[in-house]
Amino acid sequence: MSAKKWITFLTDYGLENKFIGSCRGVIAKIAPDSQVLDITHLVPRGDIRHGALVLEQAVPYLPKGVHLAIVDPGVGTSRRALAAVVEGHVFVGPDNGLLPPAIDQLGVVTAVHELTEPSFMLQPLSNTFHGRDIFSPFAAHIAAGAEPADLGPEIDPATLVRLRAPIQRVDGDKAEGEVLIVDRFGNLQTSVDAGMLSAIGATIGSVLEISGNGNIYKIPYVKTFASVQEGELLAHVDSAGALAIAVNLGDAAEVLSIGTADLFTVRRAG
Amino acid sequence: MSAKKWITFLTDYGLENKFIGSCRGVIAKIAPDSQVLDITHLVPRGDIRHGALVLEQAVPYLPKGVHLAIVDPGVGTSRRALAAVVEGHVFVGPDNGLLPPAIDQLGVVTAVHELTEPSFMLQPLSNTFHGRDIFSPFAAHIAAGAEPADLGPEIDPATLVRLRAPIQRVDGDKAEGEVLIVDRFGNLQTSVDAGMLSAIGATIGSVLEISGNGNIYKIPYVKTFASVQEGELLAHVDSAGALAIAVNLGDAAEVLSIGTADLFTVRRAG
Amino acid sequence: MSAKKWITFLTDYGLENKFIGSCRGVIAKIAPDSQVLDITHLVPRGDIRHGALVLEQAVPYLPKGVHLAIVDPGVGTSRRALAAVVEGHVFVGPDNGLLPPAIDQLGVVTAVHELTEPSFMLQPLSNTFHGRDIFSPFAAHIAAGAEPADLGPEIDPATLVRLRAPIQRVDGDKAEGEVLIVDRFGNLQTSVDAGMLSAIGATIGSVLEISGNGNIYKIPYVKTFASVQEGELLAHVDSAGALAIAVNLGDAAEVLSIGTADLFTVRRAG
Repeated sequence: MSAKKWITFLTDYGLENKFIGSCRGVIAKIAPDSQVLDITHLVPRGDIRHGALVLEQAVPYLPKGVHLAIVDPGVGTSRRALAAVVEGHVFVGPDNGLLPPAIDQLGVVTAVHELTEPSFMLQPLSNTFHGRDIFSPFAAHIAAGAEPADLGPEIDPATLVRLRAPIQRVDGDKAEGEVLIVDRFGNLQTSVDAGMLSAIGATIGSVLEISGNGNIYKIPYVKTFASVQEGELLAHVDSAGALAIAVNLGDAAEVLSIGTADLFTVRRAG
Repeated sequence: MSAKKWITFLTDYGLENKFIGSCRGVIAKIAPDSQVLDITHLVPRGDIRHGALVLEQAVPYLPKGVHLAIVDPGVGTSRRALAAVVEGHVFVGPDNGLLPPAIDQLGVVTAVHELTEPSFMLQPLSNTFHGRDIFSPFAAHIAAGAEPADLGPEIDPATLVRLRAPIQRVDGDKAEGEVLIVDRFGNLQTSVDAGMLSAIGATIGSVLEISGNGNIYKIPYVKTFASVQEGELLAHVDSAGALAIAVNLGDAAEVLSIGTADLFTVRRAG
Repeated sequence: MSAKKWITFLTDYGLENKFIGSCRGVIAKIAPDSQVLDITHLVPRGDIRHGALVLEQAVPYLPKGVHLAIVDPGVGTSRRALAAVVEGHVFVGPDNGLLPPAIDQLGVVTAVHELTEPSFMLQPLSNTFHGRDIFSPFAAHIAAGAEPADLGPEIDPATLVRLRAPIQRVDGDKAEGEVLIVDRFGNLQTSVDAGMLSAIGATIGSVLEISGNGNIYKIPYVKTFASVQEGELLAHVDSAGALAIAVNLGDAAEVLSIGTADLFTVRRAG
């Protein structure tokens, strides 16, 4: 096995300015033998739910290591900074709901510690850039061998802030869900999963009637993008196992009047 | 020599969501001692021609290793996934025209194999994210030592899908070409190369008459951007050896009525 | 200590095309054991002042190594290419003002050399892509052990091109400064520092009157974003120790009629 220590990295800092470079520098100084694996730094600013979903969907594919995640609109307030240990992985980030969905993907938390040890923080400590001054150095110290107990007091995992669960309901021949995320391809990923589609009798080849925001769309339920002509709508179960709505070589988000966080219902129409 | 195994990486996945992080994670788990070298992940969505050109122009500068390239609008259809060996480099990607221009830059293919070995694929296999489930794990297994024959059956290199060649014609005092790509600087890179410019008698200091889409532009042929005043058009032979049209500290794509895939002619006007 | 050789990397090349991948490839071939640490590649095109500020603010957090910085609107002209040694760090880039603010952060220059050694340049040498053909290979050769004296003739550090200093004035109860940069959060970072705010009697809890471009804004001076309601303006001392103007979970650049390079004055209004 490789001796490499992985630090995966997800933020809403963007790639334009000093933010990511400064964090990478802090990590490189403290843990020069660690390897940073970027997930994304383009989470929409302050969008904890979006960041949590990306981390949750990526984490089954990530190597064992430290998972540093920062979407932190409450920076500088009394929200806690924490490290959570689960199955040999350690998540580092703010206690605002960002981490639990990813943690739950991997198993049951062994220990959670608040990040309070002053010698692990950069001084002077800024009020607005805890990514550089707290989260990155703690993540690096963990990668370099610090024990969870060295970081700060233990926290009861039951006290972690959690986001509300996505809406998922099946009622007779109708499933109800919400749009979770719109990706770069303009695909809408939803909270309706493959099991809910089965429950309403939809199978590959069905036509789905999707209703939301006063609009009704009839969309073929197919296997992949190229199953329909260029420019046509399609519904499929995506790589995360969820109902996604797309346009082949087009942008579904531009075509549909349903967007992130909107509720909708699905019925088999044919 | 370093023991590092390079995996260069080009896609149209964008940097916003889980796509690149998931692929990097898959690679890190299978080949922890490999090193990923990102070329770009911002190829316009589904634009195989654009991706092929970027890969072709970058590849002479890349280290020996695995070149993982994914621009794959036909994902989930019967298009083949393949690995092509050339001069100690291995290209991994879809059989849709993306790879051959880069392969040709390096030499003659020794072997091409289809990627069919089930034990190298992630399970369950998605229909829409073969980057994560097929291309990345095969690339990683190659970097970790798998032999081409382990990947799947050998393919006749003559059967690889190829894009049409870019248009390049010289007719007396006129050269004809097409716009290949517009870069971040708003520069238009074209299929007219330095040899074609010589053939029509154009030399540094000439004025070029460039006609396309019913418009005619007279543009000085110079060595570099700062050879003209700020905001002025210039023509030069760029770092890939091709005629490029630019505006010094400005955006030629905004000024000209000629864009990607448009035909144009060049004549020496002075 | 790790044997890793760091090359930090800042450019205005963007992430879309072949530019960054080609430079990374050149570095990987010459110095395979070096590790590239990206600061940003999204400096606004040709904006030397912006690049210089990002580098200056990141550099205290970067590991010892080679700092490769390229924002080079004068590429192909007679502007010099140089390497500057300071406190065990080596800066590589064009002589156009980009490097000195970062150099000054670290200490006093020991030696500056012009990059003229032909065997370290790629051939054929392009006129427009010295990032690939000159700066990257020189940076890699330095990381691989080349001595400064091998690079080219020594230059008098006093002859380096320098940008004008940012405007910083205190006159009685008024401080005057300029907007230096707008970040992804729409925050305006300014040249007014914490010491200037103290000098005009402003403390956390004060209201600041900020005047520029004929507009006057009254903005609370607080510790962090969440100190005001969502959507409200705030002034704070940011992670670089400078006055910044922001909107909590909003975009100050959209709200204010003051932008990059604009002058403004600050007074304590309450």
